[in-house]
Amino acid sequence: MSPRAALVAAPRRLWRAGAFDPGERTLPEEVPIALVHDATATAVMMATPTDLQDFAYGFSLTEGLIETPGQARGFETVESEAGIELRLWLDAPRSATLAARRRRIAGPTGCGLCGIDSLGEALRPPRRVAEGGAISAAQIAKALEQLAARQSLGVATRAVHAAGFWTAQNGVSLVREDVGRHNALDKLAGALALAGVHAAAGAVVLTSRVSIEMVQKTAAIGAPILIAVSAPTALAVRTAEEAGVTLVAVARADGFEVFTRPERVID
Amino acid sequence: MSPRAALVAAPRRLWRAGAFDPGERTLPEEVPIALVHDATATAVMMATPTDLQDFAYGFSLTEGLIETPGQARGFETVESEAGIELRLWLDAPRSATLAARRRRIAGPTGCGLCGIDSLGEALRPPRRVAEGGAISAAQIAKALEQLAARQSLGVATRAVHAAGFWTAQNGVSLVREDVGRHNALDKLAGALALAGVHAAAGAVVLTSRVSIEMVQKTAAIGAPILIAVSAPTALAVRTAEEAGVTLVAVARADGFEVFTRPERVID
Repeated sequence: MSPRAALVAAPRRLWRAGAFDPGERTLPEEVPIALVHDATATAVMMATPTDLQDFAYGFSLTEGLIETPGQARGFETVESEAGIELRLWLDAPRSATLAARRRRIAGPTGCGLCGIDSLGEALRPPRRVAEGGAISAAQIAKALEQLAARQSLGVATRAVHAAGFWTAQNGVSLVREDVGRHNALDKLAGALALAGVHAAAGAVVLTSRVSIEMVQKTAAIGAPILIAVSAPTALAVRTAEEAGVTLVAVARADGFEVFTRPERVID
Repeated sequence: MSPRAALVAAPRRLWRAGAFDPGERTLPEEVPIALVHDATATAVMMATPTDLQDFAYGFSLTEGLIETPGQARGFETVESEAGIELRLWLDAPRSATLAARRRRIAGPTGCGLCGIDSLGEALRPPRRVAEGGAISAAQIAKALEQLAARQSLGVATRAVHAAGFWTAQNGVSLVREDVGRHNALDKLAGALALAGVHAAAGAVVLTSRVSIEMVQKTAAIGAPILIAVSAPTALAVRTAEEAGVTLVAVARADGFEVFTRPERVID
């Protein structure tokens, strides 16, 4: 299998001003991608086939399968008709931890949990981020501009999400994109970890809405500030409070709203 | 536990025109909701706690756990601190089918599949919808207006997705909302099935992007036309072709684009 293209030109009929016109539109591709740890699939995500190593490491980090990239002793990408497998092999201690976790999660029926156990798993307490970190209103506006300018798939399709990493020194220096907002953030998490970037000095900037998982993943990355173009859920705000994350949302050209830990946002 | 509110007023500091103002914003709530079939959790979704019976039946139908609402012989909602369990008990034949499916999916390790099996599960062939059905450009424009007007949570928060059902006779007569676009569509699927609506005579109208799952679920509902405000993925277009669904996307006040089966869209 040759690697899949991230962009596809699709024929379509455009209706405008009372008439149909033929033509085409550039669409983002979406591929089933299996995250496979020690030869067993942990999850299958529908994702854009770019930055796959970042995705594999980032997902593994933000979902707690590994704590550092060094705990994975091998990585392999296997493409087939059905999709893409991202295979990670863990070192012996993590491998044992994962096997124990799987035995526990599998439960007595061999598949699934009773409802109450499953619910508890979804609301696991977020990691608490370090104190410190600051960003100004002018820096937030500039970061949003930089994120928009650096979305290569987004500019081509206007249909993918982006996650960027901002620092006072470099602005938005790293951007990852995906049809799924969780995937974009996982790709960013992996890129940061593999580059050895210290996330505590920066901010995560998202084009998307903020659901609880976006806060959990930002906290797992260790970034103390999360900025998003769209609105958060009420649960995402409570989780940001619990994690000590400054949550800036509804961030547009004309302003933004700060929901938690406003002391990090300076005039 | 008392039922959870779907909307929450959250304090926030608004930055606008060079100054911070205190105030609050209405946010949608997001709750872990476990879909429990025969006492085992099939999935946990982060969802807005409204229309829960529709959600339970709709998820079960579009994911193939049941084929008709009558195959569930009981439904119960159980709230706890951790979230909400939606418990469905299946009739004897479906219960046996589900148990067999679970044994098959659980595989030899007791948890998870090897990557290739998991990938195949994600790309299961969609149901093929019936021939027939038609909508005009003027009806598409009107349906979008009606959907926007009927989003009660959407109007309050501008942060939830909506799925509506349109017919030539009644316009958009049924709307369901959720922070998750899949959940909004599953709630609509359940509402349609529980009301005994014949979906082959209508169209599904979405505020969201169209990923493969939105097409799979629309095909499972049996609606021949899918209209969405945002863009599809390339895989969603291929899946709509396979299902025989007319996919209308990027549908706005000034026009729309037809990607598959354009013969159902008339001038």
